[in-house]
Amino acid sequence: MLSEVTTKNDHLFLKAAKGEKVDRVPVWLMRQAGRILPEYRKVRASVSGFKELVTNPELSAEVTLQPVDILGVDAAIIFSDILVIPEAMGLEYQMIEKKGPFFPKTIHTKADIEALQIANGEDDIRYTIDAMKIVKRELNNKLPLIGFAGAPWTIFSYMIEGGGSKTFSNARKFLYEKPELAHLLLDKITKSTINYLKAQIHLGGANLVQVFDSWAGILPQNQYEEFGLKYIKQICDELSTLNVPITVFSKGATFAWDSFSQLNCQVLGVDWNIDPEWARSKAGSKTLQGNLDPCLLYASEQRIEKETIRMIEKFGPQKYIANLGHGVYPDTDFNKVKFFIDAVKNYKVK
Amino acid sequence: MLSEVTTKNDHLFLKAAKGEKVDRVPVWLMRQAGRILPEYRKVRASVSGFKELVTNPELSAEVTLQPVDILGVDAAIIFSDILVIPEAMGLEYQMIEKKGPFFPKTIHTKADIEALQIANGEDDIRYTIDAMKIVKRELNNKLPLIGFAGAPWTIFSYMIEGGGSKTFSNARKFLYEKPELAHLLLDKITKSTINYLKAQIHLGGANLVQVFDSWAGILPQNQYEEFGLKYIKQICDELSTLNVPITVFSKGATFAWDSFSQLNCQVLGVDWNIDPEWARSKAGSKTLQGNLDPCLLYASEQRIEKETIRMIEKFGPQKYIANLGHGVYPDTDFNKVKFFIDAVKNYKVK
Repeated sequence: MLSEVTTKNDHLFLKAAKGEKVDRVPVWLMRQAGRILPEYRKVRASVSGFKELVTNPELSAEVTLQPVDILGVDAAIIFSDILVIPEAMGLEYQMIEKKGPFFPKTIHTKADIEALQIANGEDDIRYTIDAMKIVKRELNNKLPLIGFAGAPWTIFSYMIEGGGSKTFSNARKFLYEKPELAHLLLDKITKSTINYLKAQIHLGGANLVQVFDSWAGILPQNQYEEFGLKYIKQICDELSTLNVPITVFSKGATFAWDSFSQLNCQVLGVDWNIDPEWARSKAGSKTLQGNLDPCLLYASEQRIEKETIRMIEKFGPQKYIANLGHGVYPDTDFNKVKFFIDAVKNYKVK
Repeated sequence: MLSEVTTKNDHLFLKAAKGEKVDRVPVWLMRQAGRILPEYRKVRASVSGFKELVTNPELSAEVTLQPVDILGVDAAIIFSDILVIPEAMGLEYQMIEKKGPFFPKTIHTKADIEALQIANGEDDIRYTIDAMKIVKRELNNKLPLIGFAGAPWTIFSYMIEGGGSKTFSNARKFLYEKPELAHLLLDKITKSTINYLKAQIHLGGANLVQVFDSWAGILPQNQYEEFGLKYIKQICDELSTLNVPITVFSKGATFAWDSFSQLNCQVLGVDWNIDPEWARSKAGSKTLQGNLDPCLLYASEQRIEKETIRMIEKFGPQKYIANLGHGVYPDTDFNKVKFFIDAVKNYKVK
């Protein structure tokens, strides 16, 4: 159940996303639903693994709603994983405790790509859509729900590499050695992602969708244009008629900001390396979201407050959504997270 | 012994570093001495571990000289490791096969920092200085020798974190939690590094020194100014009277290029994310070095040639040193490396 406090919000988050004037800066946290919350860890301990949580609509919904009440954030984000897309396409993954994702089979040949299906998102990732329905019912339209997907380049990287990597050199090698096959696979991923995000919007009731390009920063600029942005653009263009704002967050892609302002999306995520004023100068009329260094939440409350105010003032309080510059780190003290959220909420917009 | 081909060079590399006009683009490769060469692997197999190679002057010299003859590069770079500095300061490291560096003891408290000595570089890293002397004798002044060190922030990261990391969140946490101690440690590292680089120049005969800031890209801009660039600046200022060019290579620090042009150094390294023309626009009168994507060496020869020419033309052939945008990947085909070097050498400067 939602407390009184968290329901008096009037979709502040969506107003900021759409560029409308707000009288308070909205705030949420990437990875807010997860390991920082004792309540999450309790649910997590009740199942055999991370994937059981992701594929169980009731439990996904429960952990999605936890931070809404506990942290008092201005939006819920559905608890899921970007790797549900490759799995729905036919490439199963495992989540290895303390190591991360692992794909027993990876993509090498044209036949491998042809064997993959285009996910429809509605049936093959039904568990997440069903979780969203539960969350929407519980939220009762008092807070917005964020849907999300990985950007095609990031998903591609995992499907080639088979897991995390320092250099993703196999994925990048693939771009140079088999560019046509890379486009073939990226096209299938993109179509799957569009289907999935449409299902999140039409069936799951997502009020905004965010596209995460976690590995944008490992490509040279010209390759990111060709293999990364091209497909993000397709997603944005395809969804732009649905009247649901889109956030694009490409981590580490400082070099690509001249292109981001051209995307058919409303919000740009900003990582913690980027100076807020610089981002603003590049973003045109778009809303910006970010970008406190997740490590700052290890600092003193005094420091967190000071830096939070500094951040808001550098971004300017309008067309702005406060967040971290990346997902919250798992060992962050829950009280510091709460303190950060309150610091944003206490900031007086003049 | 050096072949005829590699001795007819007239220090092309140094001329370019100093901004003098050249009639051919000089080229070398970060990590050219190492795993891509069968000759290196043979030497490596003859010792018990990587550190035995680093601390043995004769073997270090041998693997330093290998690529000079075999690849035909325009400079030798001493075979060593950036982690010799923490070890000389009193923090021992191990190099774990296929995993990377590991520090059994890491830095937590003021007492830990006070227990460290300032390395003099001359005695405590004598093995590398001795290796340089052998290399210089063998080179007989026909090719220049590059010395190097890690930048203080990168060294600091390892000393706090105890090894590689995806986020270096412990090192970054330290900056927020104990900024005074961070400066205390960075100051000691910086003094050690200055001593070491001076020893490389005065005793080892280094003709240029390169400072590698591998983890620059994980800091927010304001923190990089405070904890990163400040100390690189001290190194550059301190060495600037010695008439030996300095190269600064801060990987992933696109956000800091406005500051790089102010450094008292002659050359800036460019990683593969950065557009050459953009780097040129930021670099002022400095020489640039880089930035082919190391993964491009997995591509066809035709593609390597095309992209190499494109890169040279984007940088412009003057005030430019061709290199990769990062160290060469260990599984790169030696013939492709050679092909890249030849492609640079065959480029006709108009």
